[in-house]
Amino acid sequence: MRIPFETLKSEFERVLLSVGFTDEKADLCAEIFAGNSRDGVPTHGLNRFPAFVEFVKEGLVKKDAMPTLDGCFGSLERWNGNLGPGVLNARFCMDRAIKLAGDHGIGCVALKNTNHWMRAGTYGWQAAEAGVIGICFTNTIANLPPWGGIDPRLGNNPLVIAVPRKNGHVVLDMAVSQYSVGKLKQYKAARQELPLPGGYDSEGNLSNDASVILESERLLPIGFWKGSGLSLMLDLLATLLSGGQSTAKITESEKESGVSQVFICIKPDSGEYTANLIEQIINYTKTSRPEREGEAIYYPGENSLKMRGKSLKEGVLVDEQMWQAVQKL
Amino acid sequence: MRIPFETLKSEFERVLLSVGFTDEKADLCAEIFAGNSRDGVPTHGLNRFPAFVEFVKEGLVKKDAMPTLDGCFGSLERWNGNLGPGVLNARFCMDRAIKLAGDHGIGCVALKNTNHWMRAGTYGWQAAEAGVIGICFTNTIANLPPWGGIDPRLGNNPLVIAVPRKNGHVVLDMAVSQYSVGKLKQYKAARQELPLPGGYDSEGNLSNDASVILESERLLPIGFWKGSGLSLMLDLLATLLSGGQSTAKITESEKESGVSQVFICIKPDSGEYTANLIEQIINYTKTSRPEREGEAIYYPGENSLKMRGKSLKEGVLVDEQMWQAVQKL
Repeated sequence: MRIPFETLKSEFERVLLSVGFTDEKADLCAEIFAGNSRDGVPTHGLNRFPAFVEFVKEGLVKKDAMPTLDGCFGSLERWNGNLGPGVLNARFCMDRAIKLAGDHGIGCVALKNTNHWMRAGTYGWQAAEAGVIGICFTNTIANLPPWGGIDPRLGNNPLVIAVPRKNGHVVLDMAVSQYSVGKLKQYKAARQELPLPGGYDSEGNLSNDASVILESERLLPIGFWKGSGLSLMLDLLATLLSGGQSTAKITESEKESGVSQVFICIKPDSGEYTANLIEQIINYTKTSRPEREGEAIYYPGENSLKMRGKSLKEGVLVDEQMWQAVQKL
Repeated sequence: MRIPFETLKSEFERVLLSVGFTDEKADLCAEIFAGNSRDGVPTHGLNRFPAFVEFVKEGLVKKDAMPTLDGCFGSLERWNGNLGPGVLNARFCMDRAIKLAGDHGIGCVALKNTNHWMRAGTYGWQAAEAGVIGICFTNTIANLPPWGGIDPRLGNNPLVIAVPRKNGHVVLDMAVSQYSVGKLKQYKAARQELPLPGGYDSEGNLSNDASVILESERLLPIGFWKGSGLSLMLDLLATLLSGGQSTAKITESEKESGVSQVFICIKPDSGEYTANLIEQIINYTKTSRPEREGEAIYYPGENSLKMRGKSLKEGVLVDEQMWQAVQKL
């Protein structure tokens, strides 16, 4: 079923106020959760909202905590999220990075002791809306074996790169695993084969069967050894720059909390020349003949924007059971 | 056969002086080419050297050109490589980024009109040697179809992330294609099957056969649609920030020249606490049980360092024909 964006947002707001969020925080937090569903990522919107509220009630997410400045040097800042809501901490830190880029051309904000930021891409869109290039990434609990190993020791550490563009921002939002655990569970439940190999079976063969991959816990990093290396580097950067918890430490506590993140913004030239370069690159990419007749080549973010348009026009697509569950919170 | 590092370097230096390089430039350029072979990447060391000299003779690489400053804003600089030797331009720009990070915490240098920088990782090692985190990437000629397409429109755009570490820097050096064209040609020549899928055959099936992939020109981006998106973003960033040529423009001229690059450095805390965080992350990763008994988990850069040690002790491994060819230059 579809419901208006404002209805979805108001409902989130009502629940957040009921568990003690301030007006301002409830509004912003509800906006982000509703926005994630609106843009086609309900796994980090509506569907995740009840678990988020549960974390708040349990005190794993501290609703009143605000980020505090740990230190700064030039265009580099280090913040402590004090285990506050991940979406609010991330939003705050991307705002700081936007400000630093405006002042110095480039800015970097590292954040420790924060919580799950839900859809990573949200903060890329935020930077692009502000007219700057945004790069951000987070570490996570271990859910991916390093290359050559069989036990999960790396996070899938989502990485975002966003470029502002007049006719729709270009926003890449990708985790380092080929498929997320959530996605594998969806395929397993639907008894569908993965369209492409997503991991290994327990004998070490590449597999398109979500259930055997979930059993072996051997999810595939993108590009095999390359994604494994990339995941390690992102964890190193997030941990060192913030002075916070690594994937190793996060995994010790079993519940994913107190993660480390990095937000980098760069101010591009805003003139016509730069705008034309973006169009040149996108247009050239789209001249590749599609593999299947009638299909097209998309740039990162293109489909999110289409989905957003449809959601705002026809209402946001929601899982009926989830929507009822939230209404009862 | 193996030859001493200094012999290899001197020979490169002799040739470069003979085609008109200054003493200083010949020394630095020879050091980088010899270093690439020493670290186990002869494809961007000895084996590429004759082609580099040919480009210099043809005037595609302008041996006397020096980078000039195009503009700066705070901690963000834009340079013009004036089509000089790519290895020298890249080295220069990474030095600038190191300086900016020392002054402002983070620095970014964008470079246009430069040439192939050979081994991307070289500049990551350079940053790490200077005690800073280094991130750099380049665009290239189109050699990779975008996801869903069959004609190459994206570059394999190598990306480097380097973290300084007392007991051996951690340096990721990865192109966005699963295998390079050069690597595919090696497998084809040796009539060996690729260990993992490297692209598609002309019917659109994933393939481990290098020759059919070279024929279809459908190399695999790492992580399928993810690497395709990552490649596009790296081209956007390199092109916009430098104001230089995109993969689209580079491809028009057919010879890969006048590429665009980005160099970012960040100054990490240099204390014991940070050093311990690095060890914690690496040690945790290495606790994953290896897939094959007797094997181990490696961090990015670990094998380069081992190879370097061996090369310096026993001599640099060289292809005998290549070595003779260079001696005749």
